[in-house]
Amino acid sequence: MALHRIYLEDQPLATGAMIVGGDEAHHAARVKRVEVGEGVELLDGRGGVGRGAVAEIGKGDRGRWEVRVEVTEVRQTPPLSPRLEVLTAAPKGGRLEELIDGLSQVGAASWALLETQRGQVDPRPGKLERLGRTAAEASKQCGRAWHLQIGMGMNLGRVLDAGNVVVADSSGEPYTQGGKETIRLLVGPEGGWTREELETARGAGARVARFGAYAMRIETAAVAAAAIVLDVEGR
Amino acid sequence: MALHRIYLEDQPLATGAMIVGGDEAHHAARVKRVEVGEGVELLDGRGGVGRGAVAEIGKGDRGRWEVRVEVTEVRQTPPLSPRLEVLTAAPKGGRLEELIDGLSQVGAASWALLETQRGQVDPRPGKLERLGRTAAEASKQCGRAWHLQIGMGMNLGRVLDAGNVVVADSSGEPYTQGGKETIRLLVGPEGGWTREELETARGAGARVARFGAYAMRIETAAVAAAAIVLDVEGR
Repeated sequence: MALHRIYLEDQPLATGAMIVGGDEAHHAARVKRVEVGEGVELLDGRGGVGRGAVAEIGKGDRGRWEVRVEVTEVRQTPPLSPRLEVLTAAPKGGRLEELIDGLSQVGAASWALLETQRGQVDPRPGKLERLGRTAAEASKQCGRAWHLQIGMGMNLGRVLDAGNVVVADSSGEPYTQGGKETIRLLVGPEGGWTREELETARGAGARVARFGAYAMRIETAAVAAAAIVLDVEGR
Repeated sequence: MALHRIYLEDQPLATGAMIVGGDEAHHAARVKRVEVGEGVELLDGRGGVGRGAVAEIGKGDRGRWEVRVEVTEVRQTPPLSPRLEVLTAAPKGGRLEELIDGLSQVGAASWALLETQRGQVDPRPGKLERLGRTAAEASKQCGRAWHLQIGMGMNLGRVLDAGNVVVADSSGEPYTQGGKETIRLLVGPEGGWTREELETARGAGARVARFGAYAMRIETAAVAAAAIVLDVEGR
């Protein structure tokens, strides 16, 4: 049985008594029904991992649940290696949350919107802001010590300047191990890359790789390609 | 620009005049606005692929759209190799459609429900029947000549008897090429396999492989693992 995990993003992890409030306290007390003395794991979403035991469960200000944890050990864990930064055209409809959720589970380090020639209209600004919340929730579900980060939108030229780029396209070869510490994986719009974009990418030294036999929607392509890259690099 | 694709599952593909009715005719005539003389591709979902040109667009019985296609060529294409049969515990909520959709896109040959010791209650029978429709729709979206098949539910013992089994579990090694013509990929419930199930599988000669660093929901694990297996086998 895995330890119950509590995310504490608003206070630094430290040994000694820590008070958990808000949704995490309610979830621990009422849904998971943790008990006094039970071991728990604390995560800050930025690599910090604490171990401790529940010392007290009760209601604090305005009748909200509070859980006091006696933290006995705090350590800093490194993020997953390699660091996989995924940039994609905007998927349609409500599929951006699905994309963030899937990328969190397979282990991507970050996601950002990629501007492409055939890309659809950008998601509204409010939408992108809410994605940080989606990423934190997804990271909790799959037990990541580091949350998936939501990056700033970029155009192709800027990503190519940054280097270590892999472009997902059916014209490429299967992905082979590159051994880089950071990899930037690019997934284009459903209309595909333009010939010009592919030529620019190849000219700038980007690798073009294919990740499946069929046309995939953006969110499926991103999850499948990210899973394959991390699998190949992790061998 | 790809040819417009029309799925004709209710009549055998043959050269000569073929009448397309129903939703496919409405979609071609009113959404895609195909024109007389335009080339189209016809698919039957069982490997048959036809080529032809639109000969007439009009309304038939009860004002429903009909498209007459003059088919000039019909060929039978083989399914994707290897044949990847995916069996999973039932994902929660509405995620079964998502699973079928994702598996269609990454190229699995079939999906079936796997009975496991920690699995949730089976989806209702009506639900499983509707999945054939979901699989056909997904196959159309990604241009598969062979629809993903929905198989009969099975227990672990029966799958192990069939052989060539890969069990997805974090205790395994990265997946390596096996060269088999048929592969049965098993994804367990979110509570994980029991120790007994893993021992039974290993004892029966199944390979245990891991497909990611984090806990994944069933539908994400299945899509990621299927993508990795097909990528590794396709090299």
